[in-house]
Amino acid sequence: MTNKIPDNFKDLLNKKAFADLATVMPDGTPQVTPVWFDSDGDQLRINSAKGRQKDRNMRARPAVALAIIDPDNPYRYMQLRGTVSEITEEAADSHIDELAQTYLGTDYHKHEDDETRVIYNIQITPVSTLG
Amino acid sequence: MTNKIPDNFKDLLNKKAFADLATVMPDGTPQVTPVWFDSDGDQLRINSAKGRQKDRNMRARPAVALAIIDPDNPYRYMQLRGTVSEITEEAADSHIDELAQTYLGTDYHKHEDDETRVIYNIQITPVSTLG
Repeated sequence: MTNKIPDNFKDLLNKKAFADLATVMPDGTPQVTPVWFDSDGDQLRINSAKGRQKDRNMRARPAVALAIIDPDNPYRYMQLRGTVSEITEEAADSHIDELAQTYLGTDYHKHEDDETRVIYNIQITPVSTLG
Repeated sequence: MTNKIPDNFKDLLNKKAFADLATVMPDGTPQVTPVWFDSDGDQLRINSAKGRQKDRNMRARPAVALAIIDPDNPYRYMQLRGTVSEITEEAADSHIDELAQTYLGTDYHKHEDDETRVIYNIQITPVSTLG
């Protein structure tokens, strides 16, 4: 267990791997959604839209968990837990375009007029890895 | 939203897809782990070992969530929520071998002498799908 992404798993940060993000509902039950993410090696950043269930969950209950599976080997993965340390709308539109460029090779085409994009910075707590 | 796996997503049950299983820790924070699963089309079954974190979590807090992503298309997935409706050790050793046969094409080689395998039946509550 470590509080950082181990060096020998940092390749997962550049592989278009999805993160399965778990948040907690108001009634204490879990919710899990696949999300895009990026990272500076320490914190992770994800991007959602204001008002969605995971947005509401992370604002009210900032503890999250993520599983990031190697797209080339499903038996190699990281299980992360973390805390949403910052929530910001600043640069969130350009951030979702950056993520779309990484994952899809295009800008994000699903922008909706009434959608407010949001960046969530996730501070990692323990990390365990397998494989 | 439906309480069953939609017919047009039932192919995911036969694709060696992993389920990312979210459970809730004693302190109310989430945990998420990739797991094998099988299904009769209504309930899902997973298999773990007694005493592991997710085993302890599901015994104490039976609400779970799962994301099941199409291994052939990461933009096609089901998000499930459910309740652990039954926990049993009966036939759990043969069940993990069945799962290993499905996913790996071999029996489960990681049996440990002091490990008690457990089956968890998960009753699905709402299902949403994308893709």
